[in-house]
This record gives sequence, C-alpha cells and structure tokens, in this order.
Amino acid sequence: MTALHPSVAGLDTVRIVGTGLLGTSIGLKLRDLGVRVLLSDPSPMALALARDVGAGEPDPGGVPVSLVVVGAPPDVTASVVAAELARHPEATVTDVASVKSGIWAAVLASGADIARYVGGHPMAGRERSGPVAARADLFLGRPWVVCPADSTTAATLTDPVRVELVRRLAAAVGASPVVMPAVEHDEAVSLISHVPQIAASLVAARLIKASDPAVGLAGQGLRDVTRVADSDPALWAQILTANAAPVGRVLREIRSDLDGLIDALAALEAADGARGVGETGAIGGPDPAGGSDPVHQAIGSRAAVARVIADGRIGRERIPGKHGEPVTRYAVVTALLPDAPGQLARLFNDIGAAGINVEEFGLEHAPGQKVGLAGVSVLPAARAALETALIERGWHVVS
Amino acid sequence: MTALHPSVAGLDTVRIVGTGLLGTSIGLKLRDLGVRVLLSDPSPMALALARDVGAGEPDPGGVPVSLVVVGAPPDVTASVVAAELARHPEATVTDVASVKSGIWAAVLASGADIARYVGGHPMAGRERSGPVAARADLFLGRPWVVCPADSTTAATLTDPVRVELVRRLAAAVGASPVVMPAVEHDEAVSLISHVPQIAASLVAARLIKASDPAVGLAGQGLRDVTRVADSDPALWAQILTANAAPVGRVLREIRSDLDGLIDALAALEAADGARGVGETGAIGGPDPAGGSDPVHQAIGSRAAVARVIADGRIGRERIPGKHGEPVTRYAVVTALLPDAPGQLARLFNDIGAAGINVEEFGLEHAPGQKVGLAGVSVLPAARAALETALIERGWHVVS
Repeated sequence: MTALHPSVAGLDTVRIVGTGLLGTSIGLKLRDLGVRVLLSDPSPMALALARDVGAGEPDPGGVPVSLVVVGAPPDVTASVVAAELARHPEATVTDVASVKSGIWAAVLASGADIARYVGGHPMAGRERSGPVAARADLFLGRPWVVCPADSTTAATLTDPVRVELVRRLAAAVGASPVVMPAVEHDEAVSLISHVPQIAASLVAARLIKASDPAVGLAGQGLRDVTRVADSDPALWAQILTANAAPVGRVLREIRSDLDGLIDALAALEAADGARGVGETGAIGGPDPAGGSDPVHQAIGSRAAVARVIADGRIGRERIPGKHGEPVTRYAVVTALLPDAPGQLARLFNDIGAAGINVEEFGLEHAPGQKVGLAGVSVLPAARAALETALIERGWHVVS
Repeated sequence: MTALHPSVAGLDTVRIVGTGLLGTSIGLKLRDLGVRVLLSDPSPMALALARDVGAGEPDPGGVPVSLVVVGAPPDVTASVVAAELARHPEATVTDVASVKSGIWAAVLASGADIARYVGGHPMAGRERSGPVAARADLFLGRPWVVCPADSTTAATLTDPVRVELVRRLAAAVGASPVVMPAVEHDEAVSLISHVPQIAASLVAARLIKASDPAVGLAGQGLRDVTRVADSDPALWAQILTANAAPVGRVLREIRSDLDGLIDALAALEAADGARGVGETGAIGGPDPAGGSDPVHQAIGSRAAVARVIADGRIGRERIPGKHGEPVTRYAVVTALLPDAPGQLARLFNDIGAAGINVEEFGLEHAPGQKVGLAGVSVLPAARAALETALIERGWHVVS
C-alpha cells in the first residue's frame, strides 16, 4: 500500500457507489495516492471489473468512511445519495451527475441530512463507458464543479468543511475545482453543453433527407457544427429531462431569434418577387434608401439577417482561449501534407527546429484527393517566421 | 512565358473581372499553367495589386478571350455577367458566387445570350480577403460546383461545350469539379453551409449574456459547434439574402423540431411538478408504464427528446469521411502533451517511427493547466500498436 499522499489529507477511506466510468476512474486515481477505496455497485460484474482494474476493494460493510462518492445514473442519484447519508451518519456525500438542482431538492425533500451533501460535476468523459474504460487521468485539467447550497435560496447551508473535502477530492484527481451554486451550474451547462448539443442534432437531422451529391459537398464547417451530434440518445434524454427548465428557457430565446430570421428571409423573398426576378442582379449595391414598400422592408430584413451573424460573433468571442487566458486570435499557416506515414513527424520536426510553439493544430482532408491540409495555429507574431521556415524546408504553404 | 499546359487546352486567353481573393487566385494558377490572363477591376488599386502578385496583366481591351471569369461581389454578379456576355460575343462566361439560381434567372431576364453562361461555385476561401491573400493553391482538392441550366426547368439549355470548358477550368486549378443544377446546388449549400452557419450564430449569441464562470466551463463541444460563428455579418447577409427561399425552408423544418422539443421539455417540467420535486430522484429507472396523466405524458415527452438526438446521429452519419470514402470510425488515442516547442515533433516522430498513419489529429487544452491533450485518430486496427508504441517511448497515454 502506497503512503497517503498529502493532497488527500482527510480522504483516508473513500466509498464509491457505482463503478461506471467516472466512479472507477476516481477509484484508480485515489488508490495511486494511497487512499483506501471501498467499492459498491448493484451489478456484481461491474463491481468485479472495477476491482480487477485496481480501483479498490468491494466494500465489506461496517468500515467508517470519510467520503462517499455516488456515481449512479442521473435518474437514481438523489435516492442513492439520501440512502448513503443515512447509512454513513458522519460521512460527506457527493455525486458526479451532470445536472445538480433537482438532485439537491430531492435529497432535501427526502429528509436526509442535507448539510453533509455536496453536489459535484466532473466535466470529463470519453466515448466508451463502464469500468474497463476508466483511467486514473480522466479528470486531468478538466473543470470539476462543486455545488454547495446557495445561501440566497437554501434554508440549510452546506457544511463548509464538507465543501472543502469535495474540492480537495477534485484537485487530488487532477481536475480544476470550480465552486458554483447548483442553479448557476445548471444554467451554465444548458448554455455551454445542452443547447449546443441540441443545435448540432437539429442541423444534423436535416441531412437525413439530403441527396448524396449535397452531403458530398460537406466541408469542415458542417463537420464542426455537427460533431457532438454523434451522441447517445438515451443518456441525453436523461440529461435534458433533468435540466428541462433552463434548457427550455434558452431554446425559447433561440426560437425567438429564429422566428425573426425566418420572417426576415420571407420578406426578402417577397421583395425579390416585387422587384421582378430579372432585377435581382441589377440592384448593384446597397438597397436604395428611399423606395417602394417591399424595398424598404428588404433593407430592414437584410439588417436583421446581418444582426444574427453579428450577435453570434460577439458571443463567440466570449469563449476563453487556451489555459483559461483571454481568447487569442491565432494566425493559421496551412501546409499541404502528403497522406503517408512520417509526414506529420517531418512537419513538426521542422516547426520544432525553428523554435516555434504550436498553439492549435488541425488536419483537413481534400475530398477525393490523397493530400491533407495541415493548419498550424501560432501566435500572430510567429506567423512570418513559420511560413519562412516551412518554405525553406520544402513545404508547400498554401495560406 | 510558360508553354500552355495540356490541362488548359481551350483556355488560351482568360479574362478575369474582379480581382479579389478568388479572381486573383484563379489568375495566379492559370498563369502557372501558361494561360494568358487579362485582369479587370473597378478599383485601380485592386487591379494593380493583382498584377503585382503575378495574376495577369490589366486587360488592354480588344483582345479576343475564350473565357470570362466574373469574380464580383454576389450582389452585382448577374449584371456583370450580362455585360460580359454582350461585350465578348464568342466567349464562355462563368462566375464564382456562392448562390446560383437567382443569378441565372437575372442573366436570363436581362436578355443576354444565356447559353454561354455557366454558373460556378468554387468552395474555397480563407479568413483574409483581397488580391494579396490570393494563392495559386487556394482551390486544391476543394469541390467546384459547375451549374449548367437544368434541362427539366429551363427553356434555353447551356451549350455543353461551354460547360466542359468551365469544368476544365476547375480541374486545371486543382479543384474537384461537381456538375449540378443551380437549384440543387442552392438547396445543398443551404443544408451544408448556410443553416449550420445560422445555428452556430444563434448558439453563440446566447453567450453574450452568460456569466464569466459559465463561459469558463466551455469545452471542446461548444468550441466546435460555434467555430463558424466567427464570420463576417455583411457578407453573410448577402449570401443568406440571395438564398432566402431554400434557407427559409430548412429553418422552418428546424423550428418545427424545436417547437416539439420545447413542448416536450415543458411537459417534463410539468410532470416533475405534478409528482412533487421530492420524488424526482426516487423514480429510480424508466417511468412506469401505467401512471397518472402527467407521468404518461412524461414518457412520451422523454421519447420525443431522445428522438431529436437520435435523428441528429442518423443525419451526422451521412457526412462522408476523408477522401470521399464512407465515414470511418477512427480509434482515438489521447496522449498528454507538455506545452513546449518540440513536443509535437517528438510525438509525430514516435508515431512515424512505429509506421502508423495518422488519420485525424486534434489538440485540446486543459483549462488552467500548461498541458495539452493530443488526440491521435488512427484506423481501429492500429489502435493497440499506437498505444504500445507511445507508452514504450515514454508518453502518458490517457485514453
């Protein structure tokens, strides 16, 4: 047994209920740090797998624990939390579900000792699930939201010592703890995760009936917008159901914007008809300031369309950049890349030899051609040096 | 002067009207292939810049040309095309605007010799615009849609010899020509470009009022969904205005789905209220098959929510993969990457030394930490070999 690591002071014995991807990953990392981990799962198979990968030992019962981590499915998390609070009257109990307000309210209503419950949401995951997919490094550098009761709304506050213990758990497994009231957390994830998921799904669903030639024209933009559409419907139905109110509010805002845009486009169509199709191309510039009613409307409609795009740009700029720093506009240098082993190595060797740090990197493939476009993002000040270095070393720089 | 390349037979002298990014890039590449390129632009400055970067010579007038390429802004393209058809009574005239039906109708209505007009849309671009940003390689591997008149709707067909000439232009500059009727093109770009742009903008606009801690939780999903929101409002107002009808149709489909989802989420909220908040977490699994009315409704509503995600997944799977092949599920191996020059080079050296071909690559940054996650996508059969190779060479593989 490893000696207890100083980062896990107070976490001498931790019970994990639910040995899925998250619970097992927490167990693996805590064991690395010398913590005694007791495992529990209603599925004997899941429990045995978690033990076999080294996440801890099956809980023999009767051992006092300092912390219980509930890694149950979102639907049953609140009842499991309430049961654990009753079973371990000294322990702090936390969970890892991705929506928080409903669970807190349900635990409170159950009559459990709510002051010992601290909601948690590690914002980590992977494509695969279950104990075998678990990794001790799963949480490295990811936010882990810790949700004590909000002092402005809750009659019973969370014990601050318990909050600190859960914060320490998050930090011990390598995550970045973020303390935030549950209501604020749920609104935040509706904006940054749940609504983007829905938008991606709605756009992707339009492709079901698209022609083959149409989808054949798909570029990187469509791929990016729809990437998260490749998600599990059953899991997402649970998540969206649990966060129905905040998600609904944001969706109604989007519908309002969408209504305005649909009306604006319809007005532009009508104005086009009023002018006669033949004149469409003959306008030749901005719409005239004084004209017939449809033309006047068209000016306002075009401004409404532009505003949708402009607002999106302003919102987009709020997303923080790398390492939580303010967003940086990187310069992108694009090089042609033959589709063969060793080419990326050669590219990054040449960049490294020039002493240039790569901020972001993307590969894009030319449809139908055995060649890739390697987009190397660097600080703007490094753009010229990178272009020169690559051209000198025989790369075909295309932008 | 270079000898005329065989790929540009029939393109002896090409006139380019509008020396922006696209027109100048076409000129650069055609000059490389030995074509005589005559340039024209209403802005003397733009014309001089295009000449200086080597895209051709200012058109002295009176020289017979085989092809005119109109690279004017979308708003004025039709009138410029009509004027060029009149000015060069033997030449084929094409354009590069991103919406096609309206231009064709406007050229037809102008009384011009429509049989010599072939609409075109090179699906290429970059962040910067203007002649100085032009590159001879801009079109490499990108689709270039060529739009002859649709025989099912147009009374006057496009001369097939002219269609072939424009197809040859596209191939000569390295693009992949795709012949498609204008109406079909406009519907395709509404689905794969215009509506995704709008969705990204609408989601990103919600961030304007978000709290700093909320946007601080943003992950790769939000970044991907909103990447294209960083676009030019004035240009997009032109594009969406020109394609108002097809874009409006797709947006109305999305609004219909959105209405259904908003209603489903409202019903779930109501059912939650009817059960009492305290029971939320105590349901403990799938909703019972027979229950009170709100519970029955909740079952249907949850299914409606799941269907939105499921449909998105089906649509997403229609997007073709790399090189136009059917989409492949790559295996992703993620390694920790210290944020320092030379690390990517070392990584790709090690991958190359193992003889493994990288299919896709992405860098993700751990918020607040000086460490990156390098996601290396390989064919599923190569996953184990890659993991072994990286671990042997001292990399920290986290998935």
